[in-house]
Amino acid sequence: MNDVSPGSPDRVRIGLLGCGHVGAALASLVAERRAEVARRQGLDLEVTRIAVRNTAIDRDVPVDDGAFTTDAASVVADPDVDVVVEVMGGIEPARELVMAALSAGKPVVTANKELLANHGAELYALAADNGVDLLFEAAVAGAIPIMRPLRESLAGEPIERVMGIVNGTTNFILSRMSDDGASYADALSEAQSLGYAERDPTADVEGYDAGAKAAIMATVAFGARVVAGDVYHEGISGISVADIEFAADLKHCIKLLAVAEQTVADDGQSQVGVRVHPTLVPLDHPLASVNGSFNAVFIEGGAAGDLMLYGRGAGGRPTASAVLGDLIDAAANLRRGSAPGIGVLERARIAPIDDVTSAYYLNLEVDDRPGVLAAVATVFGEHGVSIRSMEQEGLGGEARLVFITHGARERDLRATLTDLRSLDAVRAVGSVLRVIGD
Amino acid sequence: MNDVSPGSPDRVRIGLLGCGHVGAALASLVAERRAEVARRQGLDLEVTRIAVRNTAIDRDVPVDDGAFTTDAASVVADPDVDVVVEVMGGIEPARELVMAALSAGKPVVTANKELLANHGAELYALAADNGVDLLFEAAVAGAIPIMRPLRESLAGEPIERVMGIVNGTTNFILSRMSDDGASYADALSEAQSLGYAERDPTADVEGYDAGAKAAIMATVAFGARVVAGDVYHEGISGISVADIEFAADLKHCIKLLAVAEQTVADDGQSQVGVRVHPTLVPLDHPLASVNGSFNAVFIEGGAAGDLMLYGRGAGGRPTASAVLGDLIDAAANLRRGSAPGIGVLERARIAPIDDVTSAYYLNLEVDDRPGVLAAVATVFGEHGVSIRSMEQEGLGGEARLVFITHGARERDLRATLTDLRSLDAVRAVGSVLRVIGD
Repeated sequence: MNDVSPGSPDRVRIGLLGCGHVGAALASLVAERRAEVARRQGLDLEVTRIAVRNTAIDRDVPVDDGAFTTDAASVVADPDVDVVVEVMGGIEPARELVMAALSAGKPVVTANKELLANHGAELYALAADNGVDLLFEAAVAGAIPIMRPLRESLAGEPIERVMGIVNGTTNFILSRMSDDGASYADALSEAQSLGYAERDPTADVEGYDAGAKAAIMATVAFGARVVAGDVYHEGISGISVADIEFAADLKHCIKLLAVAEQTVADDGQSQVGVRVHPTLVPLDHPLASVNGSFNAVFIEGGAAGDLMLYGRGAGGRPTASAVLGDLIDAAANLRRGSAPGIGVLERARIAPIDDVTSAYYLNLEVDDRPGVLAAVATVFGEHGVSIRSMEQEGLGGEARLVFITHGARERDLRATLTDLRSLDAVRAVGSVLRVIGD
Repeated sequence: MNDVSPGSPDRVRIGLLGCGHVGAALASLVAERRAEVARRQGLDLEVTRIAVRNTAIDRDVPVDDGAFTTDAASVVADPDVDVVVEVMGGIEPARELVMAALSAGKPVVTANKELLANHGAELYALAADNGVDLLFEAAVAGAIPIMRPLRESLAGEPIERVMGIVNGTTNFILSRMSDDGASYADALSEAQSLGYAERDPTADVEGYDAGAKAAIMATVAFGARVVAGDVYHEGISGISVADIEFAADLKHCIKLLAVAEQTVADDGQSQVGVRVHPTLVPLDHPLASVNGSFNAVFIEGGAAGDLMLYGRGAGGRPTASAVLGDLIDAAANLRRGSAPGIGVLERARIAPIDDVTSAYYLNLEVDDRPGVLAAVATVFGEHGVSIRSMEQEGLGGEARLVFITHGARERDLRATLTDLRSLDAVRAVGSVLRVIGD
């Protein structure tokens, strides 16, 4: 039987937890699209209950005033709520509310990356146990369809690596530094004044936000449980305009990337590496042209080849669009009495950062005298780190050497750095950054 | 209940219709990914029957010789075939075979754009009547997830326009003309010698292949039936290196775009415009950097904003990857006894090309004497066509005027051209091309 019956559409009553930018945009979008969704999917969507912290605030949403409550648990428990949308953020009470909804057999759509990156596996298992959906397209990269393509379109694909520009704040800051030569501090201030960055920007600039998204992407891409605590982080606060200029000379730009990759460990078992760090991206790589507040996820597949999914990573309406797509899917599955589910996931074996292989950019200040390059090159060679390119720039009595290596293990690169620092001719080891596109 | 049972995986026997590049790649990919798909989706996929035109050809696929037959109908009818994959191409006998499979309650996965662009609606309806899937991710833009995002992720999105670079042959030719100054004829010859273009390149260079994909994308994006015959076509065979150079001076490149858009007709009803034509794309638009044999689909959404999905548009393994994703979805839905389906679609109201609004690039050769620009500008003004930019280049006794207009109706632009041609001072009207990004 066709799931969409030609008769009157099935009513779907939505309980909304949280009514900030995303929640309010969702309530509006549901009302705006109601007739079209009824025509096309045979579902009559309506937001009937909304849990907020303060009911006294006048919210410009097309929902009856009587729908609002401060008692979120009552929204979840309400027999007149069919599907729960969680857009309140944070771990508690979101976690308890989502668990209560799933346990009651109500599908949940969430945009909460922090919750999923820390407690995703137990929630997916609970959803599976109860035969309902837990969908979360909006939790990573806003409006960009990324979770559904990873889960479904690429369900059979041997995915090798997923790399995302998934934090708009840092991408805005790096774009300003690159395009206009703004300092990190100035670009951060501008991002704060525009409302793109929080007053305490740590979660963005140190890569924790991107790290949570990396954990979620790794879990879905590789079908094994990865949590936020598994992610290795380096932020962008140490990046200088000089680094960006050196990178530009080498035809690269610098992006904060969230990387999840599946590799084979020394014992032959597969392992998952998950990390966030500023990265030199070749200017002709599709990720290089993802600027400002846009996000993109680049997928390297063994059969599909390279894919990139690009769009708005944040904002009320873009995020609400992703929630609405999930909501329609969850409601249709509820009508069918069936949910694809992620099921119960084994814990991923996490690759220690020491084992991770990457190309590197290094910037050394050295004495400008004969024999120095040979001494430096010897140190690289002793640790098996192969040099892909070198540029030398005279600076009076000293010189700057800029290297890009071929792929090297983190541990070998670190040992190389230790030995380089102990060379008399090396005055300073400047920035050390990873490079993609080797 | 969770759909993935922890016990032994469910066996799914695949009947393959066609074993060219895509079919052979699929048979290999299914074998390669069998264990992982069993682990993650609880499905044990196996290609058990393959219909080919010639069983004497030795095919390097990991399937028993006894699986091959020239009797395609027997593969569809075989009770030991659970899911049918159609990668033979062309309309007949593919259409009859797909109909037979759906009527027998067997899900079908197809990569056949021609079939869907001409008979999609009747096939979607038949699939819906029989409660099984007809999935076709591979029919448009190879490995790029585009059908599933349009159908599901963007199910609630007010999609305004979908624009795709969906034909690798023409994109290769235009990239060669642009990057290396090759003539159209030379670039086409090169594409033919590399196997990117057919000996008779009409379907690619005149936009019929892209047009079929435009019809499929329009149908899915706007939930209404659009067929290949609805698509307005202009090909690339008239594009010269000079056009590409003029475009470059204006900071644009030229791409063959498949465009599907929803607009409001004069009577207030919505209508769908579908067309394929060479287009000036601003160099800072994400589609401008889609080169060579890559494909991309750019979506303009009213809530999601701009999205782009990018990747390999052709090739055996990339296309097989998309088929495999659909196959897993279809098999999982078969196990659940439920298929989301597209349902029965109403016929779209197609916007006549005369009604379509676009910005235009025009290249005029005129006498180089006072008053000519005023005369030309008067003609534009009389038809309500507003000029966005103009560049003049002296050529001795004559001059070249290059205009980009603001959005204008096709009928007004054509009337403008007619009047321009009748001006004494206008010696020739050169290329007239549409422009995006206004």
